Amino acid sequence: MSADGSTLTARRVAIVGLGLIGGSIARGLRAAGFDGTLTGVTANSADAQRAVALGLVDGASEHPASILADAELIIIAVPVGLFSQVLADVVAVARADAIITDVSSSKQGVLAAAQAALGATINRFVPGHPISGTERSGLDAGFAGLFEHRRVILTPGDATARHAVEQVTALWQWLGADVVTMTAQHHDDVLAATSHLPHVLAYTLVDTLARMAERQEIFAYAAGGFRDFTRIASSEPALWRDIVCSNRAPLLAVLDRFMADLSQVREAIAHDDQQSLVAGFTRAKQARDQFTAGRQEPHP
Amino acid sequence: MSADGSTLTARRVAIVGLGLIGGSIARGLRAAGFDGTLTGVTANSADAQRAVALGLVDGASEHPASILADAELIIIAVPVGLFSQVLADVVAVARADAIITDVSSSKQGVLAAAQAALGATINRFVPGHPISGTERSGLDAGFAGLFEHRRVILTPGDATARHAVEQVTALWQWLGADVVTMTAQHHDDVLAATSHLPHVLAYTLVDTLARMAERQEIFAYAAGGFRDFTRIASSEPALWRDIVCSNRAPLLAVLDRFMADLSQVREAIAHDDQQSLVAGFTRAKQARDQFTAGRQEPHP
Repeated sequence: MSADGSTLTARRVAIVGLGLIGGSIARGLRAAGFDGTLTGVTANSADAQRAVALGLVDGASEHPASILADAELIIIAVPVGLFSQVLADVVAVARADAIITDVSSSKQGVLAAAQAALGATINRFVPGHPISGTERSGLDAGFAGLFEHRRVILTPGDATARHAVEQVTALWQWLGADVVTMTAQHHDDVLAATSHLPHVLAYTLVDTLARMAERQEIFAYAAGGFRDFTRIASSEPALWRDIVCSNRAPLLAVLDRFMADLSQVREAIAHDDQQSLVAGFTRAKQARDQFTAGRQEPHP
Repeated sequence: MSADGSTLTARRVAIVGLGLIGGSIARGLRAAGFDGTLTGVTANSADAQRAVALGLVDGASEHPASILADAELIIIAVPVGLFSQVLADVVAVARADAIITDVSSSKQGVLAAAQAALGATINRFVPGHPISGTERSGLDAGFAGLFEHRRVILTPGDATARHAVEQVTALWQWLGADVVTMTAQHHDDVLAATSHLPHVLAYTLVDTLARMAERQEIFAYAAGGFRDFTRIASSEPALWRDIVCSNRAPLLAVLDRFMADLSQVREAIAHDDQQSLVAGFTRAKQARDQFTAGRQEPHP
């Protein structure tokens, strides 16, 4: 039983995708003492063997049918670009009453795909997104504490069964996460601003500098500020291409807002408008200091 | 004697400005066993008293005349916006043969100001810039190891006396830094790209988000990637206004390049040009991973 009383009654849990997120869910459930059956599906047969050898799952396979047939709770933890296809594969072999959840970084597109795949049984799908992760990826990048004290956002709709939301909530609470719910649209707007836009800016900045003639010199004299600013540009390119494209409209909205603001800052620099510059920098510092105040976010 | 043979022969060293950088220089020299006379000038009388009480300097005052009269090596460690005025104050009271160096983040403007203030004795001025620092500021933010294994860039000109460069080099080597030299213009181009532009982007992003209606929600759901990406937006606004304005032309050049690239990325997102997106993200990841590979930069 978790802190707020949600109980994970599902005894057979399956994870589809054993990368950073899926692998960390398995590690975390094991570490938390989950004693039901835990299985995994991964397209990578070496990962399947290693996940079993490491004791992360009781069984794993490249073939969903054998693994998913009796699962009560299925977590789809694949890159968002693969979600639709994987969901179709899951639905084809899973029990008709299996609860299904996901971990994708955008939710409106996922919800539409789930509606198409699940039809009348959409009530058993609970869209989810753990706000955690690192710039690394893969089974070996995972660790049991990845979700501890992190937020997990669920975006159930009116049709979603309360029982399904409770099971997914209990799952994440087992992993130490704080679970909140909001609409899919609100999720996508917020994540476009705090995650997808920063990734686009970091990738673009590093690419801009990497294509300059002085690239060697530039990187040679970069310091800690640059390293932290660009850390997210070491994230997996294909994953982030998919995330960006899956959240197009909200991302473009906040990107356009940022580009307009940046143009104004450019003009302030060009015209030595020191007052405007210091006003903007001060608003930013205050907001950022407020954001970090009292936070205890252990670096992974 | 330092690693490459430069010897700090100056026995009377004065630091003008006892903030993060000046205070850390004092701490570092003490920690390294410098046994000459170390004095400080600061506009903040409480800092002057505390610097002496903490044993960082042998004497400190708000009045440069008493402190600087017999100094052989003077380090001007004030925000770049104050440099010209402080240099004039220093020149008015210092020995005519005192070696003068600075720590400003841009160098062409500093060099022009020094030329105006020093005239024929410009040969004793060694422009310098330690590539280190944190988003914090002030005497209490300093620490002895701030410059250890960090780069310090000196930008001497043809007129600069070799003896002066050697003394400033030896000073930084005492503090554990790696000293390199380049032209002031090259320094400013490189720093615009790796430091000044990232600061402008981080400040602008946080300000953009802080002025959105959902600001509370946005910051509530921000995670580690956002925290690292925006760390430099917690830097001192007035300091960075001055840095940005002091390096206008190089900064605008790289900012315009970035804005053009960002517009292209925006179009790629809008038109679902996945190939172009993944190509850019991949170039960035490769460049960034190469930049971090083998680096041992302890977080301050």
